[in-house]
Amino acid sequence: MSANSFGEIFKLTTFGESHGAAIGGIIEGCPAGLKMNTELVQLMLDRRRPGQLSISSQRKESDRVEFLSGIMEGVALGTPIGFIIRNEDARPVDYNHLKEAYRPSHADFAWDSKFGIRDHRGGGRSSARETASRVVGGAVAMQLLSGQNISVQAWVSSVGTITMPELNSFTEEEIYANEIRCPHKETAEEMIQLIKKVRADGDSLGGIVTCVIKGVPPGLGEPVFDKLHACLGKAMLSINAVKGFEIGSGFAAATMKGSEHNDIFTSEKGKISTTTNRSGGIQGGISNGEYIIFRVAFKPVATIMIEQQSVNAAGEPVMVKGKGRHDPCVVPRAVPIVESMAALTIADHLLRNRLSRI
Amino acid sequence: MSANSFGEIFKLTTFGESHGAAIGGIIEGCPAGLKMNTELVQLMLDRRRPGQLSISSQRKESDRVEFLSGIMEGVALGTPIGFIIRNEDARPVDYNHLKEAYRPSHADFAWDSKFGIRDHRGGGRSSARETASRVVGGAVAMQLLSGQNISVQAWVSSVGTITMPELNSFTEEEIYANEIRCPHKETAEEMIQLIKKVRADGDSLGGIVTCVIKGVPPGLGEPVFDKLHACLGKAMLSINAVKGFEIGSGFAAATMKGSEHNDIFTSEKGKISTTTNRSGGIQGGISNGEYIIFRVAFKPVATIMIEQQSVNAAGEPVMVKGKGRHDPCVVPRAVPIVESMAALTIADHLLRNRLSRI
Amino acid sequence: MSANSFGEIFKLTTFGESHGAAIGGIIEGCPAGLKMNTELVQLMLDRRRPGQLSISSQRKESDRVEFLSGIMEGVALGTPIGFIIRNEDARPVDYNHLKEAYRPSHADFAWDSKFGIRDHRGGGRSSARETASRVVGGAVAMQLLSGQNISVQAWVSSVGTITMPELNSFTEEEIYANEIRCPHKETAEEMIQLIKKVRADGDSLGGIVTCVIKGVPPGLGEPVFDKLHACLGKAMLSINAVKGFEIGSGFAAATMKGSEHNDIFTSEKGKISTTTNRSGGIQGGISNGEYIIFRVAFKPVATIMIEQQSVNAAGEPVMVKGKGRHDPCVVPRAVPIVESMAALTIADHLLRNRLSRI
Amino acid sequence: MSANSFGEIFKLTTFGESHGAAIGGIIEGCPAGLKMNTELVQLMLDRRRPGQLSISSQRKESDRVEFLSGIMEGVALGTPIGFIIRNEDARPVDYNHLKEAYRPSHADFAWDSKFGIRDHRGGGRSSARETASRVVGGAVAMQLLSGQNISVQAWVSSVGTITMPELNSFTEEEIYANEIRCPHKETAEEMIQLIKKVRADGDSLGGIVTCVIKGVPPGLGEPVFDKLHACLGKAMLSINAVKGFEIGSGFAAATMKGSEHNDIFTSEKGKISTTTNRSGGIQGGISNGEYIIFRVAFKPVATIMIEQQSVNAAGEPVMVKGKGRHDPCVVPRAVPIVESMAALTIADHLLRNRLSRI
Repeated sequence: MSANSFGEIFKLTTFGESHGAAIGGIIEGCPAGLKMNTELVQLMLDRRRPGQLSISSQRKESDRVEFLSGIMEGVALGTPIGFIIRNEDARPVDYNHLKEAYRPSHADFAWDSKFGIRDHRGGGRSSARETASRVVGGAVAMQLLSGQNISVQAWVSSVGTITMPELNSFTEEEIYANEIRCPHKETAEEMIQLIKKVRADGDSLGGIVTCVIKGVPPGLGEPVFDKLHACLGKAMLSINAVKGFEIGSGFAAATMKGSEHNDIFTSEKGKISTTTNRSGGIQGGISNGEYIIFRVAFKPVATIMIEQQSVNAAGEPVMVKGKGRHDPCVVPRAVPIVESMAALTIADHLLRNRLSRI
Repeated sequence: MSANSFGEIFKLTTFGESHGAAIGGIIEGCPAGLKMNTELVQLMLDRRRPGQLSISSQRKESDRVEFLSGIMEGVALGTPIGFIIRNEDARPVDYNHLKEAYRPSHADFAWDSKFGIRDHRGGGRSSARETASRVVGGAVAMQLLSGQNISVQAWVSSVGTITMPELNSFTEEEIYANEIRCPHKETAEEMIQLIKKVRADGDSLGGIVTCVIKGVPPGLGEPVFDKLHACLGKAMLSINAVKGFEIGSGFAAATMKGSEHNDIFTSEKGKISTTTNRSGGIQGGISNGEYIIFRVAFKPVATIMIEQQSVNAAGEPVMVKGKGRHDPCVVPRAVPIVESMAALTIADHLLRNRLSRI
Repeated sequence: MSANSFGEIFKLTTFGESHGAAIGGIIEGCPAGLKMNTELVQLMLDRRRPGQLSISSQRKESDRVEFLSGIMEGVALGTPIGFIIRNEDARPVDYNHLKEAYRPSHADFAWDSKFGIRDHRGGGRSSARETASRVVGGAVAMQLLSGQNISVQAWVSSVGTITMPELNSFTEEEIYANEIRCPHKETAEEMIQLIKKVRADGDSLGGIVTCVIKGVPPGLGEPVFDKLHACLGKAMLSINAVKGFEIGSGFAAATMKGSEHNDIFTSEKGKISTTTNRSGGIQGGISNGEYIIFRVAFKPVATIMIEQQSVNAAGEPVMVKGKGRHDPCVVPRAVPIVESMAALTIADHLLRNRLSRI
Repeated sequence: MSANSFGEIFKLTTFGESHGAAIGGIIEGCPAGLKMNTELVQLMLDRRRPGQLSISSQRKESDRVEFLSGIMEGVALGTPIGFIIRNEDARPVDYNHLKEAYRPSHADFAWDSKFGIRDHRGGGRSSARETASRVVGGAVAMQLLSGQNISVQAWVSSVGTITMPELNSFTEEEIYANEIRCPHKETAEEMIQLIKKVRADGDSLGGIVTCVIKGVPPGLGEPVFDKLHACLGKAMLSINAVKGFEIGSGFAAATMKGSEHNDIFTSEKGKISTTTNRSGGIQGGISNGEYIIFRVAFKPVATIMIEQQSVNAAGEPVMVKGKGRHDPCVVPRAVPIVESMAALTIADHLLRNRLSRI
């Protein structure tokens, strides 16, 4: 069983509650000899960190990762990499008013039904704070991928009803040039204005993150249950607030004919590729060498600064209203999380694929 | 590693190529003492069987499942349930012309890239024939679920651009009253006409299957990586031809505000429920007692009877045109497969949840 | 969970009751492209088969393995290898008198305590008949090993109080030259006479199987929980009737001093080896390139033709006496089972070791 | 894959090198609501701690465990329990002279063969220091067991050629009344004298630890590969320096007849038990309600203060002689480690057994 783990070979196991002593995890399967730049890990973690965007939660966490094992003099030992991130700006008192109340569209009621006991402080383990550990795992995975010239890049493509136009290409700098992490400057500005307006109303917004993985060699993924896009889908759906996942043509494929949808193979100088990429880089669950592209739908943040009707554990009616420090829209901070989960998935399948042939 | 298995406790492992001697599998984790009606398994398998719908593949397989172990006198022994389904109407010769060609949007090229060897006959293990084993597993899972008053029901909600209207309720009989397995009679008729027309053109169509699971108690699912909808998503995305998955409000959630999206808790006679169900029955990855609803997008079948440009393994241009016996639209036969994967997922989490409390 | 599986990458999952329709299994992780000689599998299976040795059970099983998938034209496809062995000479009626009785030192009572239901016919799944599936898995594993020049050889070194002298070397032919599978001719003859005598008394005997694995490269095994000898130990202790396992110096090590026990490293032409091998080929859980040697202790068969006191499920006193066809001493037939479990373990770690370095 | 984990449901994953920043781990599967006395964990950890016995290593580690998650107000939350133990008295400089040398009968050469890189300081992850994390896991497991009235008790039964006589019963206090953890006072004194003498010679000694588990209900363990004694065997063989394992009658069983070995069932007031316990509390891999007893053989410590011939990584001859702080005999400190691995195994199977019946 592996409820707290992701991956089969390159495997991340996490622990930690939002307002406990620390969160952290263990990364297994990182091959011995891999060069490890722990500063790159911190850099990616900083992109997820709260308190840095004017449009995100103002919780102040330095989110310094401390590596405890598995790395010596900048090289992976092949042993498990243990790490922790201390919780510094925990303010459990902010949550005292919620000890008994079930916040609408939160995990509170379901959690109580399951465990009968709950760390109500900041959502405990159901808090998105847990995803900081995923970013550490993802950033380590990326160092394995970059050695194979595989890159992972995500960005915000929609916020509420605002959607950016299709762009031919753009750089990482353009994504991170603005707080919303949308590479289309004008759309980014609109999105930021919308978030500010909605936040002023005490409300929140959903959005979509798109992710592209380039350089994946053909052959990754397993034919039946562990299809590459099935693993990517699970990875994304395991992120807090995600309600939908689509690969390549996605839901639009349902409306198409085979003659419109099929990607035609072509060959140049011995390299086989496709002229279109409705498959999204994966066919029969296995990567085909084209870029992998998928979209992830996030619901609006459940915590809003508007009073809502609810019940408490005894079933009595209570009114609930958000306090504490919450994001009005999670998608900007979700970008590095999506990238991390994608990197973990690809790294795992890259290693698994070492086993496919004699 | 578990590339050929689905589930952690209630676990199905499958084997088999489309045109080999047999397909089959092993079901583990079925609790001792469960009453087993193997005729219900055959009934569900018959719903997936080719050759029975005028709009589906005419391959004639009796698809008789033979149980080899784990059941004695109609009761599960608690030991692994082995089963096989012989391949009877295999016509490997139909595929001789494809031995060297890479069929567009099929697994052929990706498979060769991975394994370097391929059973080209009918797609080998990449064929949807493998899903018959999933239906056996799912039908066994359903016997565990029905003892807990949990029901799983899927239907075709879209074919191409035709979408059925929202219905308040309908019965299993209404779903199976027509070949397309759409409970809205008029829409069903339209869908059938469209499929017939497209088939006459040698083309194929995509579609959407919707699934509802009723009676799931609150508490199923794990908080972090094994969120219940993440496991359902992986289950669905592992079905051949699936390109997208959404739970509850799904992609529409991305366009909504928190105040619109949140499901308000209410309480009646000690039973806590929600007044709306945009969460789709799952909050924080854990079931909340409401019905679970999700949608699965299928791309159009890749094999079409229209000549298409492609390449062979040597990278040389070839023309490819479907022969053999293929479905012009997979969604009607996908209905029992979606139900089976859903049943396997819920059965697994039902058992996993026995472990959550002291 | 993997109660019916052995191995992480090269993985065997078995099913089947002794007197059900068939036993069988699925072999996963066999790399694509491996040449597969299925006749060698049958040959090894024949060595485990009952009814062929004058000193073993007279149950007549042809034990023909039928491969159903995963192999095409003598080559592994990289997909799961499904196989079955039909139960032919099942005589469930032989066991009717035992339906209610708990046979001494059998699994009957413990099994009922666990599952509350039991296939009493021939021990059901607790029968050593299940090990036939392990021999199939082991024989497939050996084809992977022999390609790496790794050999696995086991033999009977003790029966009751008769122990063979240490031999410098011997051949497979010498082991299989006699029914007892002991390479020392004179000892073999003594063992056979002892077994015949004990059988005449309706009694049974224990014994020891020794196993040597040659050609294992240094580096196999994992440093902590999955030490190579821990995995071998579990493999052996999972065989019916095994009560003890020791690697290299084994229990004798407990009586030694470090200066006596340490294996001294030496080097010749760049190849590092040890001058002695008390480590048994494994140091710190990882193979060091020396031959691996271990010993496995089997208790006497619990079924004897002598009347014994016991109780039934109601706790009432009953007398129990073996009927049916039983081995008076299991060690000769255990030889291929020990070899198979060893081969499965080494094959698994051979593949796992592909993952250790960048 | 789970090279750094032990257990399927109640699962411990460890990380950490001997002279890195910290060692630690994650305990998964601890049911929500379990009362957690973390002081008992520290108490058990103290029993393993170096520097406290006159006959053990003088490395001074306070070995304070810090729990980071999964426990709130003395109760398990059902979420993963993360913990760390800082390495305080690390003296990596003690190992500089060994950076290039392969210590005889140590993991050094095998490790280099596997990973190509090695933390040579104190053995890195191959050091028995890792077992401190196992003791934390075991001590948490014991709190689950004690709630079910299951007790685990190990003691030193042999040191070198000195073996204690069979005792009918003794208390935990009698075991811990002396440094050697042997409950027979006179034998304990002899053992201590022997160890002191051997240490004075710069040499080391092996020994045997015996363990009894009382109160295990019938029904724990899985019939085939995960037999309860197979899991216990793997648990013990994964402890550093272990060379052999036997359950119940063990190797002696190989010399016995069935009529001598069989345990006869009897029944009193509806409770079925056996009149002897050669089975060691496990039949067919499943506990039968009798006490579980097994013996674990430890080789002499490989590090001795006597100069030994060896080679370095280049294959050149070098002389090696222990420095640092080493135990002349590990068995006293192995007692809590054996108990911990036993507790982890039983706790895991206690939870697994919740799944066996409908």
